[in-house]
Amino acid sequence: MSDPTGSAEPAPFTAADFETRLRRAAEAAREAGLTGLLLTPGPDLLYLSGYAPVAITERITMLVVPVDGEPTMIVPKLERPDAEESPGSAVFALADWTDGSDPYEATARLLGPGRYALSDSAWAMHLLGLQAHLPDTTYGSMTAEIPMLRAIKDDDELARLAAAGAAADAAYGEILGVRFAGRTETEVGLDLADLLRRFGHSQVDFTVVGSGPNGANPHHEMGDRVIEHGDMVVLDFGGLKHGYGSDTTRTVHVGEPTDEEREVHEIVQRAQQAGFESVRVGVACQEVDRAARAVITDAGYGEQFIHRVGHGIGLTTHEPPYMVEGEQLPMRPGMCFSIEPGIYLPGRFGVRIEDIVTVTADGARRFNVTPREMAIVE
Amino acid sequence: MSDPTGSAEPAPFTAADFETRLRRAAEAAREAGLTGLLLTPGPDLLYLSGYAPVAITERITMLVVPVDGEPTMIVPKLERPDAEESPGSAVFALADWTDGSDPYEATARLLGPGRYALSDSAWAMHLLGLQAHLPDTTYGSMTAEIPMLRAIKDDDELARLAAAGAAADAAYGEILGVRFAGRTETEVGLDLADLLRRFGHSQVDFTVVGSGPNGANPHHEMGDRVIEHGDMVVLDFGGLKHGYGSDTTRTVHVGEPTDEEREVHEIVQRAQQAGFESVRVGVACQEVDRAARAVITDAGYGEQFIHRVGHGIGLTTHEPPYMVEGEQLPMRPGMCFSIEPGIYLPGRFGVRIEDIVTVTADGARRFNVTPREMAIVE
Repeated sequence: MSDPTGSAEPAPFTAADFETRLRRAAEAAREAGLTGLLLTPGPDLLYLSGYAPVAITERITMLVVPVDGEPTMIVPKLERPDAEESPGSAVFALADWTDGSDPYEATARLLGPGRYALSDSAWAMHLLGLQAHLPDTTYGSMTAEIPMLRAIKDDDELARLAAAGAAADAAYGEILGVRFAGRTETEVGLDLADLLRRFGHSQVDFTVVGSGPNGANPHHEMGDRVIEHGDMVVLDFGGLKHGYGSDTTRTVHVGEPTDEEREVHEIVQRAQQAGFESVRVGVACQEVDRAARAVITDAGYGEQFIHRVGHGIGLTTHEPPYMVEGEQLPMRPGMCFSIEPGIYLPGRFGVRIEDIVTVTADGARRFNVTPREMAIVE
Repeated sequence: MSDPTGSAEPAPFTAADFETRLRRAAEAAREAGLTGLLLTPGPDLLYLSGYAPVAITERITMLVVPVDGEPTMIVPKLERPDAEESPGSAVFALADWTDGSDPYEATARLLGPGRYALSDSAWAMHLLGLQAHLPDTTYGSMTAEIPMLRAIKDDDELARLAAAGAAADAAYGEILGVRFAGRTETEVGLDLADLLRRFGHSQVDFTVVGSGPNGANPHHEMGDRVIEHGDMVVLDFGGLKHGYGSDTTRTVHVGEPTDEEREVHEIVQRAQQAGFESVRVGVACQEVDRAARAVITDAGYGEQFIHRVGHGIGLTTHEPPYMVEGEQLPMRPGMCFSIEPGIYLPGRFGVRIEDIVTVTADGARRFNVTPREMAIVE
């Protein structure tokens, strides 16, 4: 598919990349006092091995990365040919288990006693299987134990995230020219999805079109509501381009807004800017939430900002670091996350503005650079 | 989209359906000696509540079904509007938690001490959060504790599974007429996906086109290999229609097969029939695996049949009961599962034949009824 934003497919990550990442991960595990890391299909495994089984199922696949010793990935025997072809398989051993045998017994043989960090989204069934087989082990989630595993992006990853952001921006630029009034949210959402694909996304994860009262539900996706003249419309969309995520939100208005709509939008825009300006190396992630929230609270809408201000982004569109009250992790160069304050007035309308940013030595840099002012659409 | 197989969208499940299912689930939990059930987004939650959040994320959503007392679903505050609109919300209470608070503390308030069965695919992070907050609780996976939760399908579910099977059969009928030789596996696979959608599938989960040596990798999906005259081609495809799964496999040949290819196909076909004929109310699930495997082993190909013979199907395409050595669950009327023996000759070719069947008082009934003989394609 041709991509008018023109960014060529980047070179794939190599065995050397995975070897570096595995070594760094083992080192982080050692510093955290762990015995090893247990990675299951999803972003952690993809990051450390390049491997993604054709489906995430009840059959356990797990990469065991001990602090001392060689990493080993155990896979169902029938998926072994795929695992052998994965780019990272050159830098770890493979083991397998067969249907009808006990997969946890086979996996347990790869683990010594001690404490392990386990991928957040590992199946509870698999954790319970290991706990039952290995009474001398304890476990913590990756986000609790090693939140930094994938949080700092290298230059190749930053280039991919920048390309994904540019594609989302291009999609936003185009959507402003389509007809809103008289069409359903779903029709506009399908336009957005088409645009994301046209600008190089291989996967569209969400296309929120929250018109009028639907905009007051932050996780409303899109529906049959016909957009009317006079509606605020929240547009929140993203997916994967070259394997990395995009996620941006703008709130537009069909025709001229009221003074109240203009004021609420302006508050959210100031909150987003305050969050942006609070980004600084060494400052705790929660300060971004606090900075944005203070603007909204001071304006009297604190109760209507009902979610954290942001989340990390990379191989997935939700990952550490989480920009939320209580998150003490200090910001470091190469972290990438959303800043997306909102105000939601139930039954009436909502406003949210979101950019992906990355932390640099000089503060934040935006991957989304379309105007944050309220655009007027037709 | 018009569906030439003509099956109309069935009436949605109602609050009364969910109430019945919840009551039955609580009763099953009591019989299993449990304190309650913990259902997370995915098929278990959908089955008991009709609710599916827009995405399965790090934010915990959990339906707590105690043996005694009222079921309660806890959701992230920002998803509460969606949860309130779900069909089952009339028959359980809702609780919520807010970003920046401890979601496990909030969830733990809904649990007393005791033992719980937890959805297989619940995030390990959530289980670890509950274990840390509630030292007086223990957990088992749903498959280990209550494998029968969704295993027996009622008449409405059977009708949906039959419709999904008929649609997959219609897709197979059409694919026999397309050109194979000279086209890539991916081209044929996209044809299959289009056909499944044309015959009413809302979601295509897999379209395996394993030609020549690729057929010997049971989880090969499809790739750039150009199919040649003389290839065996494994076609394994399915997805969801009206919310329920299809999954069928036929192995076809481009042009005339060799004697060996014909013989291997014939063995697999006899194994599939033997599995089918072994289905009987009260017999252990593992006997279906044994019956099919005996045919293949007797023919000298036992080492080349490297997976279990089947898996349950319903709201997902892999669920209990698993038709595997060691599975003692007795077959009961209304169970639905695949019977899919295969022989895989690495570097050469593979053969697999798969039907979805349901258990009746008189033995198995097939939801896939296309000829199992090797079709010759061009």
